[in-house]
Amino acid sequence: MRVVIAAGLTRTARIEGISAAGADPEAAVHTPGADLEIVAFGRPVRAPVVPVSPTGCPTPAVVTRAVRETAGFDLLAVDAGLSAPTAAPTVDVDAAPGADVREARPVPDAAGIVDAASEVGAGLPDDDLLVGETIPGGTTTALGVLAALGEPYGVSSSLPENPIERKRAVVAKGLAESGLERGGAAGDPEAALASMGDPVLAAVFGLVRGAAASGTGVTLAGGTQMVAAATLLRHAGVDAPLGLATTPFVAQDGSADLRDAAAELGLDLAVTDPGFDRGEHPAFGRYLRGEAKEGVGMGGALALAEGRGIPMADVRARVASLTDALTEGGDGS
Amino acid sequence: MRVVIAAGLTRTARIEGISAAGADPEAAVHTPGADLEIVAFGRPVRAPVVPVSPTGCPTPAVVTRAVRETAGFDLLAVDAGLSAPTAAPTVDVDAAPGADVREARPVPDAAGIVDAASEVGAGLPDDDLLVGETIPGGTTTALGVLAALGEPYGVSSSLPENPIERKRAVVAKGLAESGLERGGAAGDPEAALASMGDPVLAAVFGLVRGAAASGTGVTLAGGTQMVAAATLLRHAGVDAPLGLATTPFVAQDGSADLRDAAAELGLDLAVTDPGFDRGEHPAFGRYLRGEAKEGVGMGGALALAEGRGIPMADVRARVASLTDALTEGGDGS
Repeated sequence: MRVVIAAGLTRTARIEGISAAGADPEAAVHTPGADLEIVAFGRPVRAPVVPVSPTGCPTPAVVTRAVRETAGFDLLAVDAGLSAPTAAPTVDVDAAPGADVREARPVPDAAGIVDAASEVGAGLPDDDLLVGETIPGGTTTALGVLAALGEPYGVSSSLPENPIERKRAVVAKGLAESGLERGGAAGDPEAALASMGDPVLAAVFGLVRGAAASGTGVTLAGGTQMVAAATLLRHAGVDAPLGLATTPFVAQDGSADLRDAAAELGLDLAVTDPGFDRGEHPAFGRYLRGEAKEGVGMGGALALAEGRGIPMADVRARVASLTDALTEGGDGS
Repeated sequence: MRVVIAAGLTRTARIEGISAAGADPEAAVHTPGADLEIVAFGRPVRAPVVPVSPTGCPTPAVVTRAVRETAGFDLLAVDAGLSAPTAAPTVDVDAAPGADVREARPVPDAAGIVDAASEVGAGLPDDDLLVGETIPGGTTTALGVLAALGEPYGVSSSLPENPIERKRAVVAKGLAESGLERGGAAGDPEAALASMGDPVLAAVFGLVRGAAASGTGVTLAGGTQMVAAATLLRHAGVDAPLGLATTPFVAQDGSADLRDAAAELGLDLAVTDPGFDRGEHPAFGRYLRGEAKEGVGMGGALALAEGRGIPMADVRARVASLTDALTEGGDGS
């Protein structure tokens, strides 16, 4: 089992009120790299920020790292369009940061990213992969891809109140600018990605397509962005079994319809509860109030911990100590 | 303990008869990336070659991977000037492949590589690092750096008969072309690297300088290239304790004077014998006849295995099975 995290950027995140990843737009640029460094090393190394929401909710990378420290797993980070150097080792799939989804072709190199990621996915020696993501603004581009493919699934949000009307308006503008009807890219995942997606979705789609073609079992680790990835895969004719491992915070989000989407797409859904209601740390309360919800493979990591028989109390204790070390500027090692 | 492998290229390797890394110049371009993939995954993934010497001696990456499979360690691969995409996740330190050391400035961006690598080294959370390398032609650039610094140490070779006269002629031409006397860059490691080095030495130097400055213990894992790295560090005023972990194949090489160099540089020398004379595999015989000798952190990995109490027979068995899988085009996973 290897955990893959694709990390990148889309300028879509700069649209006001879209994303909770990073307390401000400047910080958001460093969020995906910082997330990778936290999973790789337990703390930011080259990234100048600790990713927190505007209210101080720490990144889900902390939960994934907590599982790594308790259960152990190999990490494969993918540079799916980062703009700042990261100390986390990454695989290069020729991805540049994505442009604003309201433009005509925000991911002009989507086909190249898909090909490179597919080559990587096909070549990995693992029997099973967990595939997660980190990209601020990614639920909006996920909504864009779903619209381009003509699928009705909703998307979740890293904010407690999902700015879904704002996202829909952004997507409508993007479709118009791309000269696409809703469903105009059905059956053509690369067109949907180039016109309405982001480089992380392109990398996840390519990597999973390659892995599935070589017989590797794949669990998509995440929420509605991974529903978009699964939709792309089904539109590409990939009929391999796929898992979807997520958190209760997404699964309970009424705006996302995750269970229905998973059933329609034939995804084996696993929802793993970290039991934050049985803990005392302020970070737990922020998750319980609907912040962050998912990301950086959090739901998949929790499923991995559960599968290995790690008590959730151990994971929570590690989340608490990592969060304290990060927010106090301490040494998270 | 984390194992760092810096991987890159120098056009110096194209000079005929200089290097055993890669059976031909085209293959040599893919050798460092293939080495990283073997340590990361057990087999090449994107690299189109299995690195073998002209006679079929497998890369020392196989030994390092064998230790990883038996003893386990975290890997941090550094892209210190690769030219082909690799599926092994790598840290970017802004390195391009080096030019031929006979040119005036084969590593014009040496200072930038050193700074980026130093930032990474300073930020890593580990108490201890093992630092190795893979770069075809690297002993010749090591000889070049030693000449630029005015130090008398010899260098080893990945060939049974060290083409040392050829290397000396190459270095003499490089010094003349760079307008340097022997010792003309004493006390100025970045000038030595830019004029006579390669991007891997620049990355190793920077990373270790940063790590040592932040109190991290460092063992240089390799032979005479790591003597050159240590010499650069001492010329930079780094007086932290440093280890040098290598194989008996380098330590016994009369052209290298490794023990004297280690003593003069204040390096704590560890020579770990994999006991290839007590095994049956043809690959063992090639090492015993002086091919390959060291590289890709092999000596450091063997020391790590010994320190963890892993029987060398287990390491040898894994080397044999990995080699068979690689040379038969089988699945090394």
